[in-house]
Amino acid sequence: MATVSSRPLVRDDPLRLVDRFAASAAVDEDAFMSTAEFSAWFTARQRSHAFSVRRIPFAELAGWSFVGDGGELRHQSGKFFTVEGLRVHDPAGPVTEWHQPIMNQPEIGVLGLLVKEFDGVLHFLMQAKMEPGNVNLVQLSPTVQATRSNYSRVHKGAGVKYIEYFTAPGRGPVLVDSAQSEHGTWFLGKRNRNMVVETAADVPLDDDYCWLTLGQIARLLRIDNLVNMDIRTVLSCVPLTTDTRGVHTMGEVLSWLTEARATHQLTTAPVPLAGLPDWRQDAERIFRPDERFFSVIAVEASADNREVKSWTQPIFHPHGQGVAAFLHRRIEGVPHVLAHARREAGLRENVEIGPTVQATPDNYRTPCEEMRPDFLDDVLHADPSRILFDAVLSEEGGRLFHAQSRYMIIEADDGIPIDAPPGYLWLSPYQFDALLRHPCYVNVQARTLVACLKSLR
Amino acid sequence: MATVSSRPLVRDDPLRLVDRFAASAAVDEDAFMSTAEFSAWFTARQRSHAFSVRRIPFAELAGWSFVGDGGELRHQSGKFFTVEGLRVHDPAGPVTEWHQPIMNQPEIGVLGLLVKEFDGVLHFLMQAKMEPGNVNLVQLSPTVQATRSNYSRVHKGAGVKYIEYFTAPGRGPVLVDSAQSEHGTWFLGKRNRNMVVETAADVPLDDDYCWLTLGQIARLLRIDNLVNMDIRTVLSCVPLTTDTRGVHTMGEVLSWLTEARATHQLTTAPVPLAGLPDWRQDAERIFRPDERFFSVIAVEASADNREVKSWTQPIFHPHGQGVAAFLHRRIEGVPHVLAHARREAGLRENVEIGPTVQATPDNYRTPCEEMRPDFLDDVLHADPSRILFDAVLSEEGGRLFHAQSRYMIIEADDGIPIDAPPGYLWLSPYQFDALLRHPCYVNVQARTLVACLKSLR
Repeated sequence: MATVSSRPLVRDDPLRLVDRFAASAAVDEDAFMSTAEFSAWFTARQRSHAFSVRRIPFAELAGWSFVGDGGELRHQSGKFFTVEGLRVHDPAGPVTEWHQPIMNQPEIGVLGLLVKEFDGVLHFLMQAKMEPGNVNLVQLSPTVQATRSNYSRVHKGAGVKYIEYFTAPGRGPVLVDSAQSEHGTWFLGKRNRNMVVETAADVPLDDDYCWLTLGQIARLLRIDNLVNMDIRTVLSCVPLTTDTRGVHTMGEVLSWLTEARATHQLTTAPVPLAGLPDWRQDAERIFRPDERFFSVIAVEASADNREVKSWTQPIFHPHGQGVAAFLHRRIEGVPHVLAHARREAGLRENVEIGPTVQATPDNYRTPCEEMRPDFLDDVLHADPSRILFDAVLSEEGGRLFHAQSRYMIIEADDGIPIDAPPGYLWLSPYQFDALLRHPCYVNVQARTLVACLKSLR
Repeated sequence: MATVSSRPLVRDDPLRLVDRFAASAAVDEDAFMSTAEFSAWFTARQRSHAFSVRRIPFAELAGWSFVGDGGELRHQSGKFFTVEGLRVHDPAGPVTEWHQPIMNQPEIGVLGLLVKEFDGVLHFLMQAKMEPGNVNLVQLSPTVQATRSNYSRVHKGAGVKYIEYFTAPGRGPVLVDSAQSEHGTWFLGKRNRNMVVETAADVPLDDDYCWLTLGQIARLLRIDNLVNMDIRTVLSCVPLTTDTRGVHTMGEVLSWLTEARATHQLTTAPVPLAGLPDWRQDAERIFRPDERFFSVIAVEASADNREVKSWTQPIFHPHGQGVAAFLHRRIEGVPHVLAHARREAGLRENVEIGPTVQATPDNYRTPCEEMRPDFLDDVLHADPSRILFDAVLSEEGGRLFHAQSRYMIIEADDGIPIDAPPGYLWLSPYQFDALLRHPCYVNVQARTLVACLKSLR
């Protein structure tokens, strides 16, 4: 390595990137590919491949089996993920102790969006991709969406397309790069690296990929089950705000979260999956007799354009449609949303910032009505004139089967005070931009809502 | 709760606090308590109490026992901490697998410095405190240094003095508040809340406490085994720099760390403490027959001014004195130190930013010479003219017995390039200020060195 004795200094400027992203967000009808062309292209992509998914008994899983003393469900390679048993102790919660299956996937994968300037405007390379858990099989995905097992080819399939733009030495400028958590109710400590990498290279365009502006993606976000979770989480990390004002300082926001993490801690311990209290296992499912929450099932999938043409895998099947919503209000003209410091068993730091409301209403039927979360009814019964955003969007289809949530942003009525109740705080878009440079502050449902918030005009 | 429909906005300004702290750092000889008066006061405090510590066999521990299937060492209350067995798998490390005892203390404690203006200058409330593991028993400690078990009075002792300034509703402005990790080689995911809270109240001054400026503390930091680890870690979080320049942008720094975390992951699994491979247990110690690394022992301590007058506890006894050092150079006039992305088994995110060198030289005797860390010899054999800081300081004496490290900052020679080798990066003081607003970026040894770096004139 050559010895360098000096080098020009750079000045830290976290707002530096905002202008370029904002310019892309302002373009929602593009010469490169119009919205009409996109629709035709996407429909063609859906039709051009043979995809199928069917549920199978656990015994038909290939390479997966219930092993060891605790009967965990593992792949023979030791890679991908395992389904394990977890005991959760949450002294301050409405339920103080429970057991559940959970997915353990310690590898940090890559969710990567490649960007390139065309006519001076940043465009994002999007992919039409099949996932076995998607209700409609094909959704719009990031350029790259790969676990380390995927791109290091544990499954001996073809290489992950475009991965070299994210991982090879000499790649282009990295505009966004932070590790973010995924669902703390289904994953134990899972996180993925959310990346936006710029290229000036002449990028060969595969049939299943297209270039879109941020403004175009913002429009597509309003269509049910089109823009997948992995795009939404990466987009939530794209800074778009130069207005650094808020009703609280960042110091206050960080201290609020530190306090929430220190005050009510939940603890977890691995337990055997076999014989997990309150859960049953039969040939096709691990489930609760009361059919609440979720079940673990198995599927066989085939897709002629995936790295591996057909495969079997376990997958989590949430029961009932979720609701995730932000209450929203302008304070002195600056938009704010009501954030909630939310404990989840699988989060590495126990507490992250969640939506105002994050719940599956079916779980609060009798006898659990008294546990109904704060603000749930404000959201479900909001006057239509107050609804700023409303779409049913899918959670990640590689690990979650038919997992859909209704994402809403609701203009708060005047009864909801700026002095938020304990556990809640009004945050501005800039504060989310600042938090999302760092790992594990904002949970995955809130990140989808942040992406939706950024899409509002 | 009153409904508030509006409120003045604040603008985020992370540099806002720097001037007030810098003014305190500029005062190193103070009218309130001179340096000579401090020495007399501290000596008097050491002499005014009866302290004693003696090693005992495990069988004499009161309230502690080896329990359960795995023989973990626990307190009967279930609080404080447990000593457990851990298996570590580090495929990219010089040693790819090992077993060790580790302390599991999931609670987030408080390390708190109370500050108050006298004559317009911020003063910090310091405590002369006995800890059983300190080589000299009494060191200078933060205002408050308490686990949650301590201040919620699990041990049924007296209340923790001054804790109400940190935890009570209506406390003063919180100037610093972030959860930071502790030694990843001895603690499993431990972190403490590092707080600086300001008060305008008339604070009653207990005999064991005194007010000092940042400049005075900086001077005391150069005295061996005086300023304890808990003060050092809180001071590392006190922002002192307005110069936001650096050889890298914050985006590059964060991406470098994200990549280090994603690339080489180590995994850990709890295993029984009883029969831990490579370790032996007798009546007084859990240790390795080769006497490397550390042992687990037990002590009986008494101190007539502690919340509990006498107690017994297990404690970790590191073998050999550690070395932690930053290589330092000015680049275009701006100070930089060479940071290392360091994997440690007990860190929640596996990798944090560590010193250029962090090692216990005794561990690299035959047959381990070939594992000698990079830069260790540059540090140990540095020309005295290049040594900017050099003091032997203690690690936390509540859990660690006679744990001392030599902390050094060494002016790098020209052979060490600005294009740092893989895993290393040159960071500026501002970048540490920015990182230390957030949890678990900078490990505890590097935080001591950051405090030392800030003390340099």
